[in-house]
Amino acid sequence: MDINELKKIVKDESQIVIGDKIEKKYLSDSLQREYGHADALVFVKSTQEVQNIIKYASVNKIHITPRGAGTGLTGATVPLHGGIVLDFSKMNKILEIDEENLTLTVEPGVLLKDVQSYVEERNFFYPPDPGEKTASIGGNVSTNAGGMRAVKYGVTRDYVREMEVVTGDGKAITVGGKTIKNSTGLDLKNLIIGSEGTLAVITKIVLKIIPKPEKSISVLVPFNNLEDGVNSVIKILKASANPTAIEFMERNVAENSEKFLDLKLPSDKGEAFLLLTFDGDESEIKSNSEKAKKVLLNSDALDFIILNEEEAINTWKIRGALCNAIEANDESIPIDIVVPITKISEFAKFTSELGRKYNIKLIYFGHAGDGNIHVSVLRNHLEEKLWEKKSHDFLYELYGKSHEFKGLPSGEHGIGLHKKEYFIEVTNEDNIEYMNEIKRIFDKSGILNVGKVYS
Amino acid sequence: MDINELKKIVKDESQIVIGDKIEKKYLSDSLQREYGHADALVFVKSTQEVQNIIKYASVNKIHITPRGAGTGLTGATVPLHGGIVLDFSKMNKILEIDEENLTLTVEPGVLLKDVQSYVEERNFFYPPDPGEKTASIGGNVSTNAGGMRAVKYGVTRDYVREMEVVTGDGKAITVGGKTIKNSTGLDLKNLIIGSEGTLAVITKIVLKIIPKPEKSISVLVPFNNLEDGVNSVIKILKASANPTAIEFMERNVAENSEKFLDLKLPSDKGEAFLLLTFDGDESEIKSNSEKAKKVLLNSDALDFIILNEEEAINTWKIRGALCNAIEANDESIPIDIVVPITKISEFAKFTSELGRKYNIKLIYFGHAGDGNIHVSVLRNHLEEKLWEKKSHDFLYELYGKSHEFKGLPSGEHGIGLHKKEYFIEVTNEDNIEYMNEIKRIFDKSGILNVGKVYS
Repeated sequence: MDINELKKIVKDESQIVIGDKIEKKYLSDSLQREYGHADALVFVKSTQEVQNIIKYASVNKIHITPRGAGTGLTGATVPLHGGIVLDFSKMNKILEIDEENLTLTVEPGVLLKDVQSYVEERNFFYPPDPGEKTASIGGNVSTNAGGMRAVKYGVTRDYVREMEVVTGDGKAITVGGKTIKNSTGLDLKNLIIGSEGTLAVITKIVLKIIPKPEKSISVLVPFNNLEDGVNSVIKILKASANPTAIEFMERNVAENSEKFLDLKLPSDKGEAFLLLTFDGDESEIKSNSEKAKKVLLNSDALDFIILNEEEAINTWKIRGALCNAIEANDESIPIDIVVPITKISEFAKFTSELGRKYNIKLIYFGHAGDGNIHVSVLRNHLEEKLWEKKSHDFLYELYGKSHEFKGLPSGEHGIGLHKKEYFIEVTNEDNIEYMNEIKRIFDKSGILNVGKVYS
Repeated sequence: MDINELKKIVKDESQIVIGDKIEKKYLSDSLQREYGHADALVFVKSTQEVQNIIKYASVNKIHITPRGAGTGLTGATVPLHGGIVLDFSKMNKILEIDEENLTLTVEPGVLLKDVQSYVEERNFFYPPDPGEKTASIGGNVSTNAGGMRAVKYGVTRDYVREMEVVTGDGKAITVGGKTIKNSTGLDLKNLIIGSEGTLAVITKIVLKIIPKPEKSISVLVPFNNLEDGVNSVIKILKASANPTAIEFMERNVAENSEKFLDLKLPSDKGEAFLLLTFDGDESEIKSNSEKAKKVLLNSDALDFIILNEEEAINTWKIRGALCNAIEANDESIPIDIVVPITKISEFAKFTSELGRKYNIKLIYFGHAGDGNIHVSVLRNHLEEKLWEKKSHDFLYELYGKSHEFKGLPSGEHGIGLHKKEYFIEVTNEDNIEYMNEIKRIFDKSGILNVGKVYS
């Protein structure tokens, strides 16, 4: 690769870092389970730069690995084949808020937390709420990130109106539109959302925003065990209680987090919890929370604790730190298998038994309201080779079983590198072949994030 | 084409109608502006039959034109190149209601009205509500049909969890999943939704359903003119009033419908109306309708009439018959251009001026809440050749202008045959080329609804 060609493209040479000078973190993702290698790291600053770099790379068959804030959990940002790491963290401007059409136009490197605070300060609301707030919005779109509030509001896909993207031959195209409805030709926008940088890179996003809900309350509901908790979820949904979030955690998992943060959950009852939120105006919240309270206390709930402001903040801190608390002491593999809601409890039971079979410690938590219970598979300081084999065999069985349950390998993290093998194993060959053929259309030279997801 | 080959595939010879025996309606759509020709009409009854017919057609390069209930408005079901019309009206079974996972599994030929009544009898709700209730659900998915309740609930796309489809080489694949979330590889499901039979035909659909709202109210809001009405829409949306529907009609248009049905709107005031609905429980409806009432009466609304049951039924009948009332006396071209909400009023003004320039009579109505105001272009008994030229020139300018306003050619009817020219004119060449390349993947022999939308 001719670095001088890259230097001609970018505005300022300081945007380029070469070979050994590249910091290690740019060669991996947030888990840092695997490192790749790259000839150059480029901090792009405009669509034009992106186009010119990709055109150059396409002609010279140089691999491109796009990355946002590097908070991914699947290795999608590991550069496998050298070439260029295209870093979007400096394309981080908020370009327009349109308060009448209810849209926010951003560059892909803007962080989720900055999107959320920018619109909330103006009394608007961007509903998707993945746990990792320092993720870039481009990364959220590339993995179709989900998060806490998906139960009521849906996922990232539901909030992308329009995008500008650059395909594998350097063409910039606009997909979707600022309009609310669209029945206009093939839906290229939805094809690119969730494609993890394998079809195109995203250079501009028009997001849908909504008026900010007047207020929000949180409710902690203890149960005797995981099964009682997740079985109550369907009852809440069928009661039209319209919760914003239904998160699940077990007491022994929360305890890690309590110690880690030096905080306490406001309940001594139960071994498992649902943490609910309700938002809207006063009357909506009252009516919905009362519906939920009624069905929950009529079934297995041990209590229905409406949290005061301080309790709510602390409880969400505890929920938010579950992963960090675990990772502070041990390495873990995050799994975001999603199953139909009715299968959560059966699947969790199977998972526990499988864990016992392999003598692997597991931790459950996550988004019970949409069938997306996370499982963290703990390494427990196992020796490298043994851990690799054991976790692989365990995961192979787990993904296989989730497929029998009509589940899917990823609810919100994406497939990336680490789940690719399992994804291909449980997916119809024809579907994988169609995906690869589509890739060959958008990325004719085969340079965009090759070797990831399905390719 | 060898009809004997087809006879071997289907269960019963009566499923096949040949050449001249084919009723004319099967060679067109509901507008019957154009008729095609076909060698055979086959009423398919199973996925296996569909696969075998498409395999046979693919090998022998025989064109396939899929059709549901034939209620389309764009000519998408006109067989342009002979071959086989594949009619799904006899694949009309409801296969499963899953009351816990909140899904309904249907064959594509089930009618929208039957989906709606089936779930509502069981206290569930299928929110998408396109005007034409005798459309097939497969047709609704193929055009990503929108309808009245899109403001609150979204469009057909938002309610398809999983589909079984047969691609152009006769492969049956399953796309999507019964799970709520999905970040698993390229989104083939959303690519096929709205593709108007150009990539695959749909043989099974798993729909998302929700608990039935407790009740619903309708409100009629009169204004002095169209502009005041549509400008109030943004105020309603920004007030978080969460209406289910915001329909728009002008008094002089409603009058056709009133005469046609021998009914009366319950207001003498105003020249234009918004017709709102609110659904949910008692307190939600009260709170939301009061928010709307406040902002509307503080701006240009002349009244805020909460309709009693009889008034609501009659007013919705008048709204529902707007098209039929027009078509009873005149031929018309239905336009479903969609523009950003802030542009509705300006675009309507431009449209009126353009109508005057061409001396063409226009009628406005539709879904103000999502920027999807329908325009009916009336022929006014013009002589054929003149009408063709005049309407074409008018539409060419109109689609061009909508593009300047960042609108799109179709909000919910699709592109089909009749809008293809305008769609291609206002769409980036690269996007059209990507669509055609995608078609060549799913339909390698080039037999599925060729010549429609973008192809």
